[in-house]
Amino acid sequence: MKLPSLSILLITLPLIAFADPLPSWTDSESKDRIISFVEAVSDPAHTDYVTPSERIAVFDNDGTLWAEQPVYFQFIFAMDRLADLAEQDPSILTSPALKAAAEGDVETVLKGGHDALIEVVNATHAGATVDAFQDAVAEWLDTARHPRTDLPYHQMTYQPMVELLRYLRDEGFKTYIVSGGGLHFMRVFAEEAYGIPPEQVLGTYGETSYDSSTGTPVITKTTGIAFIDDKEGKPINIERTIGRRPILAGGNSDGDFAMLEWTTAGDGPRLGVLVHHTDAEREWAYDRESPIGRLVDGLDKGPDMGWVIVDMANDWSRIYTGAN
Amino acid sequence: MKLPSLSILLITLPLIAFADPLPSWTDSESKDRIISFVEAVSDPAHTDYVTPSERIAVFDNDGTLWAEQPVYFQFIFAMDRLADLAEQDPSILTSPALKAAAEGDVETVLKGGHDALIEVVNATHAGATVDAFQDAVAEWLDTARHPRTDLPYHQMTYQPMVELLRYLRDEGFKTYIVSGGGLHFMRVFAEEAYGIPPEQVLGTYGETSYDSSTGTPVITKTTGIAFIDDKEGKPINIERTIGRRPILAGGNSDGDFAMLEWTTAGDGPRLGVLVHHTDAEREWAYDRESPIGRLVDGLDKGPDMGWVIVDMANDWSRIYTGAN
Repeated sequence: MKLPSLSILLITLPLIAFADPLPSWTDSESKDRIISFVEAVSDPAHTDYVTPSERIAVFDNDGTLWAEQPVYFQFIFAMDRLADLAEQDPSILTSPALKAAAEGDVETVLKGGHDALIEVVNATHAGATVDAFQDAVAEWLDTARHPRTDLPYHQMTYQPMVELLRYLRDEGFKTYIVSGGGLHFMRVFAEEAYGIPPEQVLGTYGETSYDSSTGTPVITKTTGIAFIDDKEGKPINIERTIGRRPILAGGNSDGDFAMLEWTTAGDGPRLGVLVHHTDAEREWAYDRESPIGRLVDGLDKGPDMGWVIVDMANDWSRIYTGAN
Repeated sequence: MKLPSLSILLITLPLIAFADPLPSWTDSESKDRIISFVEAVSDPAHTDYVTPSERIAVFDNDGTLWAEQPVYFQFIFAMDRLADLAEQDPSILTSPALKAAAEGDVETVLKGGHDALIEVVNATHAGATVDAFQDAVAEWLDTARHPRTDLPYHQMTYQPMVELLRYLRDEGFKTYIVSGGGLHFMRVFAEEAYGIPPEQVLGTYGETSYDSSTGTPVITKTTGIAFIDDKEGKPINIERTIGRRPILAGGNSDGDFAMLEWTTAGDGPRLGVLVHHTDAEREWAYDRESPIGRLVDGLDKGPDMGWVIVDMANDWSRIYTGAN
């Protein structure tokens, strides 16, 4: 092999040796621990080395990879879609919950509890082919803006986490989303926003039907939720779909507790990472009392289990991918 | 770059240029059509070129990648396991169906229909952690022998299909199993037998539970089937789990019809491959009348949809991986 010239070496070597893989993270214990872990498991000479096929990393989405306030973005999509559908056919608003949702009245819908939420999900997520549903999500992402930041929702991804995902892949990890959010909803933006392809997006999913009676087979979203990818559902879904125990898991709420617990209870090197929302100024500050993204068990038990608790206000120099 | 020496070139070039990727396939139309398809979709200069991330190939397992006669191998495992469990505790044989199964009396069990099968599955596939269950499968594969061939079951994989899987991966495909067989059962041997890792094995699965109350979290197989990966369930599972429509699908029975239909109905180049069991001498000959691997729709409609119908007796020069 011919060696590159000295000038090329002088230009590229410092980049290779000293490039910061996580430039939007401040110099913090969180950053140090993450980098130490990744360097150890990807170094064949290290005692904690892990073969590439077992370098599986799983991440929650809402509140971990993108924001989730004042309410899950998918719920805002559902209300916007319901308003659109009701404009074409007002008769679909058959209940107080649906009328409230179409008016964007979150509080009234949430007061209706689980039944009201299922009504809204069925009215907005069922009855269309998967393709048509995903076209609607894509159009919404193109046009809708967040009430506080005025950013498109898919630009409210966390730049430090996007960097972490890329860093992990650069070091031979396979990165997955394992979220309570909807599978079909997330797949619309996961590849562009996070570099995560459809087959690595796990989430909650509704029933679907396969019909080829018209000659052109279609898969249609029907009513009813088939699987809720939250709490114990997360390790169950990981075991079922991935079939390997991850070595790194990231989350932000008690809905992620079982996933981090399952991940870090395995043999060998393991890392749990919890994003703690401590930044009322640049993002939101919430944990124990929040109806969205409630975090109690993770704060109480996570540190003893060696989890990294990311202090958003101090550990991140930048928040959103879409704004500086 | 320094060029390799002439002697190296003389040794390696013919291998690269002329190696047959499917040596256990005879020179047949089936082989020609498969190779033409793969060459077209992987050639950037070809009009049918497909970007690597969309080169998804899905295969049924029983009767497509390994044999399935006289009855699905997983069912033989279940009967053997039931006999083992009953030896430790005969009181578990609480019904005529279970007694028959423990004695290996397939006919009586099958006469009991769906309910009898579920009884046998619950008695043999539930109540253990996933790890313990998979240890039992591994031990069975090590020790059990097929009554006709005297081969270990995981050596009754089809050598021509193992070659096809490898060839597809060499040409940038991602290969998946999508089988009516059990997820946890297949994952025990899929990587070694087929080169297919756990996260690319889709199948039927039972309910599981997550429990961390003892301090060490475990995932346990519980009673009840959560999803049957057969017929319309196959495209539904592919859509749900992979999130992309495959461009190649292989099967052998009408349980695979919807999967091949969904695959080949997409835009662009597509290939459906059906293994037709025509070889009573080296394997088995069965199709329209067989209770296992019944094939009617595929033979009647497949050719018009352009599917390759593999004539096992004529198209394969070798059958099993485990015997010459």
